[in-house]
Amino acid sequence: MTEAAQLDESTASEARLQYLHEVLESGRMRRLKPLLHSLHPAETALLLEGVPRTKRMLVWGLVPDDDHGEVLLHVNDEVRSQLIEGLDDDVLLAAADGLEMDDLADLLEDLPETVTQQVLRSMDQQNRERLESVLSYPADSAGGLMNTDTVTVRPDVSLDVVARYLRQRAQLPDQTDTLFVVSRYGRYLGMLSLARLVTLDPERDVSEVMDTSVEGLLVDMPASQVAKRFQDLDLISAPVVDDNERLVGRITIDDVVDVIRDEAEHSIMSMAGLDEEEDVFAPIARSARRRAVWLGINLFTAFLAAQVVGLFEATLSEVVALAVLMPIVASMGGIGGSQTLTIMIRGLAMGQIAFSNARTLFFKELAVAMINGVTWGLVVGVVAYIWFGNITLGVVIGTALIFNQIGAAVAGVGLPLLMRKMGIDPALAGTVVLTTITDIVGFGLFLGMGTLLLL
Amino acid sequence: MTEAAQLDESTASEARLQYLHEVLESGRMRRLKPLLHSLHPAETALLLEGVPRTKRMLVWGLVPDDDHGEVLLHVNDEVRSQLIEGLDDDVLLAAADGLEMDDLADLLEDLPETVTQQVLRSMDQQNRERLESVLSYPADSAGGLMNTDTVTVRPDVSLDVVARYLRQRAQLPDQTDTLFVVSRYGRYLGMLSLARLVTLDPERDVSEVMDTSVEGLLVDMPASQVAKRFQDLDLISAPVVDDNERLVGRITIDDVVDVIRDEAEHSIMSMAGLDEEEDVFAPIARSARRRAVWLGINLFTAFLAAQVVGLFEATLSEVVALAVLMPIVASMGGIGGSQTLTIMIRGLAMGQIAFSNARTLFFKELAVAMINGVTWGLVVGVVAYIWFGNITLGVVIGTALIFNQIGAAVAGVGLPLLMRKMGIDPALAGTVVLTTITDIVGFGLFLGMGTLLLL
Repeated sequence: MTEAAQLDESTASEARLQYLHEVLESGRMRRLKPLLHSLHPAETALLLEGVPRTKRMLVWGLVPDDDHGEVLLHVNDEVRSQLIEGLDDDVLLAAADGLEMDDLADLLEDLPETVTQQVLRSMDQQNRERLESVLSYPADSAGGLMNTDTVTVRPDVSLDVVARYLRQRAQLPDQTDTLFVVSRYGRYLGMLSLARLVTLDPERDVSEVMDTSVEGLLVDMPASQVAKRFQDLDLISAPVVDDNERLVGRITIDDVVDVIRDEAEHSIMSMAGLDEEEDVFAPIARSARRRAVWLGINLFTAFLAAQVVGLFEATLSEVVALAVLMPIVASMGGIGGSQTLTIMIRGLAMGQIAFSNARTLFFKELAVAMINGVTWGLVVGVVAYIWFGNITLGVVIGTALIFNQIGAAVAGVGLPLLMRKMGIDPALAGTVVLTTITDIVGFGLFLGMGTLLLL
Repeated sequence: MTEAAQLDESTASEARLQYLHEVLESGRMRRLKPLLHSLHPAETALLLEGVPRTKRMLVWGLVPDDDHGEVLLHVNDEVRSQLIEGLDDDVLLAAADGLEMDDLADLLEDLPETVTQQVLRSMDQQNRERLESVLSYPADSAGGLMNTDTVTVRPDVSLDVVARYLRQRAQLPDQTDTLFVVSRYGRYLGMLSLARLVTLDPERDVSEVMDTSVEGLLVDMPASQVAKRFQDLDLISAPVVDDNERLVGRITIDDVVDVIRDEAEHSIMSMAGLDEEEDVFAPIARSARRRAVWLGINLFTAFLAAQVVGLFEATLSEVVALAVLMPIVASMGGIGGSQTLTIMIRGLAMGQIAFSNARTLFFKELAVAMINGVTWGLVVGVVAYIWFGNITLGVVIGTALIFNQIGAAVAGVGLPLLMRKMGIDPALAGTVVLTTITDIVGFGLFLGMGTLLLL
């Protein structure tokens, strides 16, 4: 994507935010009504996330009632909690009304127990059972993503019969592009797309024309794997089956798009030790507490690096130039290592890289590190020589830089593999651990060689 | 998403990679054939990306001919170039055959001129014109994403007539869930979903039942905005129109999913100065050259930080403990700043944050930085005091840490806004510039105060 396109992307939402904040400052809130009525719930949700916490309920008050449910679904977890806390039970009950089953299940988890009970009581037997079935699966599994509103047909009827049946129903659930073919016992047999239904000879039987190429997704398949399947097969909707191959629901691509986006966000945020569900305007104390943990871990590792430097106090007091050049060693090692680390984290997540081909990648990264280590080691060495007029100092920092690049490549490849083996998400703590390693190796080499050659 | 789910995700592809590499080492390539025949093109593409460069053509030789086109589309730009270079014109020509128009347009851009000419010559007039129309728009615009295989109907006919027309056609393009209603002059008027067509009374006219709520996407709308529209409206397909509101094509959600994934990858990779289209196994010289640029820029900024340290040589040679503690100041500033920076980069990209609400965010980040600065400043101060037995040293590093956190917050909010105003992608160079600022501020404060209080 070009940069221009990226910048363009948020122009509309930026203009909306701008307008919103002007109105918020003027205090003439009613002016927002037309705007909020013209937005789609997802856009309203984004806008609410961009409103400072103290003014959020004010803006919510102007959101059309019909959008309540969808907006609550689209805002991130923290903003949702804030809104739910501020709302009366009957408003929440009305918001829950009319949501699709999978969405309702997501929302119910966050609603107060009293409201959940009322929602369940207000439903008929069939819908309650459906909802309970969705609720019984983790939100990040096929069962949690699915809707139970499948339209099913039998294999032994003609397309004409199917057509008449649909006309009787008079309407289909949203996002229905295909019907599901099931046996008398509810076993999933295949799909019959509406596109086939309307183009093929009405005399033909369903069993002749159904598409059996898409297997049912097991109800406990992880959401990320569901997303991969949809992408690989370019699916719009897919059947969900239980252990006995009985059709229990369907997943549509709009739910999968959310999974794909959330995964990407998760990587970006974890690499900085943040949570993707965090409210940008979270209360200061809460934000501070959360980030304090990350800073604390980092502080601990920084002390380790300082300990290494501390071993060379005598050298540093003699050759102060070493202290001056220390930041360069640390910085170059960190950057080199984090490039390798990023390639590994992405490759592992996408399935391009696994233990089996990591060795080839390792040698490649090693070679790249050597070439760049030598290149920039030479540059740094010459600059240090000119700066401090000491050729040995130039040799020391140049050599340290070369070996630190190599160490960074080794750690960049090895660390994520190790973390994966231990069951830790490499994106989460990778950077902090990696820079600790490059700092310790870099300082140790640089000051160690300095002690040997310069004292 | 839970970590377990993330780890699970690539188990299948990991097992495949494992098997592939065992076979590659055994040299009995023919064993791969069943595997490659069972995979979908997107999975094969991923596998090829995970094969070392030297063995890639070998594996390609076993990919079923029918998958050639789709696999070429799914691999990243660099792997595609490698494959195309290694293939004969007639293989490429066969691969291009049977692709959808938008996909063909993407592929043609990378094919040698001779092949492109042959592809164009082999098409009939209508298809050639369609292809040329897709080719005339940038790949990252609605026009570049669209397919021209729309199925159109007139508003003044009955649903029954439409049904008969479809039955005559006998088949619909892939991913057709809706028909487009156009005027006699080709103006886009609305959509008629197959779901409506099959459920409503056949006597009714198209104009009565068509859905006019989805506006046509302008042909030059940026891809990222198209993706946003699809997500906001939960669309499966959408019409693309020219300046005169004439229908020129349609975009389906499978193309949009690719855009969403590419955007997320782009952010992750740019933050480490990498390109998302890079081959993991790119030739060493090429990788080294690319990354050298990033390391070079970082080296320059690291020298700036070293210059600042250099100003305090006299102090450092007297109070060597300052040199020992320097890494802590740099590290904590970098981490604090990069948390704020990540929130800003993500918020700007999503449209949560704009200039209008940045001020509120700024004060929040400032408050968080102060709280965490004081917390960890105290801890560091006490530890430094215990370590070196010098209370003034503890005060100096504690104070430096507090102000460096504040500086990091200011830079973390201000820098991305500034870069955006200048038209630079904040993800691209943000981290390097930010850590330069936190290093310079941190070292300057720490050593400056050290000079005043400890000499």
